[in-house]
Amino acid sequence: MEKLTIIKVGGKIVEEEDSQKQLLADFKNIKGNKLLVHGGGRSATKLAERLGIETKMVNGRRITDKDMLDVVTMVYGGLVNKNIVAGLQALGVNALGLTGADMNLIRSEKRPVKDIDYGYVGDVKEVNTEFLSTLILQGIVPIIAPLTHDKQGNILNTNADTIAGETAKALAKVFDVSLVFCFEKKGVLMDENDDESVIKELSKNDFERLVAEKVIQGGMIPKLENSFDAIAAGVKEVIITQASEIGKASGTRVQ
Amino acid sequence: MEKLTIIKVGGKIVEEEDSQKQLLADFKNIKGNKLLVHGGGRSATKLAERLGIETKMVNGRRITDKDMLDVVTMVYGGLVNKNIVAGLQALGVNALGLTGADMNLIRSEKRPVKDIDYGYVGDVKEVNTEFLSTLILQGIVPIIAPLTHDKQGNILNTNADTIAGETAKALAKVFDVSLVFCFEKKGVLMDENDDESVIKELSKNDFERLVAEKVIQGGMIPKLENSFDAIAAGVKEVIITQASEIGKASGTRVQ
Repeated sequence: MEKLTIIKVGGKIVEEEDSQKQLLADFKNIKGNKLLVHGGGRSATKLAERLGIETKMVNGRRITDKDMLDVVTMVYGGLVNKNIVAGLQALGVNALGLTGADMNLIRSEKRPVKDIDYGYVGDVKEVNTEFLSTLILQGIVPIIAPLTHDKQGNILNTNADTIAGETAKALAKVFDVSLVFCFEKKGVLMDENDDESVIKELSKNDFERLVAEKVIQGGMIPKLENSFDAIAAGVKEVIITQASEIGKASGTRVQ
Repeated sequence: MEKLTIIKVGGKIVEEEDSQKQLLADFKNIKGNKLLVHGGGRSATKLAERLGIETKMVNGRRITDKDMLDVVTMVYGGLVNKNIVAGLQALGVNALGLTGADMNLIRSEKRPVKDIDYGYVGDVKEVNTEFLSTLILQGIVPIIAPLTHDKQGNILNTNADTIAGETAKALAKVFDVSLVFCFEKKGVLMDENDDESVIKELSKNDFERLVAEKVIQGGMIPKLENSFDAIAAGVKEVIITQASEIGKASGTRVQ
């Protein structure tokens, strides 16, 4: 099987000009097949504010009414995605910007309302492995915005970590997938006050013990649970690292 | 050669929910290979207004400073494009939303400043015939937003009629291309006060005579000049018609 590196980068890095430039240069240097999933939340919040649309977050997730859906469609699918594509093309990377609606790549369902109505937010149901792998094998580099569709005409706002994870699992049938989640720190830390205390390798047993010991907590827990899910579904490795370290053998390796 | 129908639809039709729905249903019914180029000017102007950005037009062209470039990137590349894609996917059309930056499909150059500085506006230099025709021959239906790039990292705002014309000319090497320009009237009219006075067939000689006689004037002249250019470059036919008539044998046939 050929190798495929899937990089997920959050908002801040792709939204500021200098850090985006560095990211794209680093991304260009990754050898072989690759795919980028990006966020854009800060820009969406900023645009919403300028338009007088209130941003409501619950458990770190954006409540997406019709107006907010238009905002994220514009920011994620347009502004952030197309600027990354143009930036990579300038570096000679054959980037193609996509949402889950394009070629029906990622079908989702509107999240059912239980305690909270998240609005136009999608839970991923199906990734079109065939189309996506065909593009990649043609030398195209997909740049995926965190938007999916329900195949009934609606765009749905979808968490970028989830898109990266589900895409990695689907493509693991065709490629040896390395999934890289970029965040603010150099990796999962043994001591949150020591940025250098990166855990190099993390097994599921270690993870469960460290959660019980409250060494690992907060938003890192769902991120790692997703990572172990991906491994269980055939993804070869998941790396949690800083954007500046992509392509290097650093960060926390989940296996 | 296989047939390919290229449809260009302006802003209003794709920007209003009801007319967009009808357009997509009509577009779905076009048999064989097809490609859609859309506008979105009205929505861009509306968003710009809400953001306190002034819209300046010269000779029907939008002056595109950095703020306006962000607006059109969001509206054309995000909002309008992705809603069309999701709408077509719901109808079973395998739509893929694109700008000229994606896969380096359409490279342009920033328009040189002479009397007027149009800002981030691109003149088309090169269409990537190979990638575009490969997609189409795979059964994919490209939906192209009026944005290109300069391959130096900049998105450039580009007239949708020009994109349709240049794409048609490039693809004429691979396909028997019918290029359909949709506008408000049923076709080119002999009498501007009689909507039924459609000229069925228009040759270059007829055109020149009718311009001299001032039967054809205003914005229709550059549209028809572009059409004759396309014919001269190998496009099989150019049809000027109303959006509601696409796929039917009506309107004005330029040849």
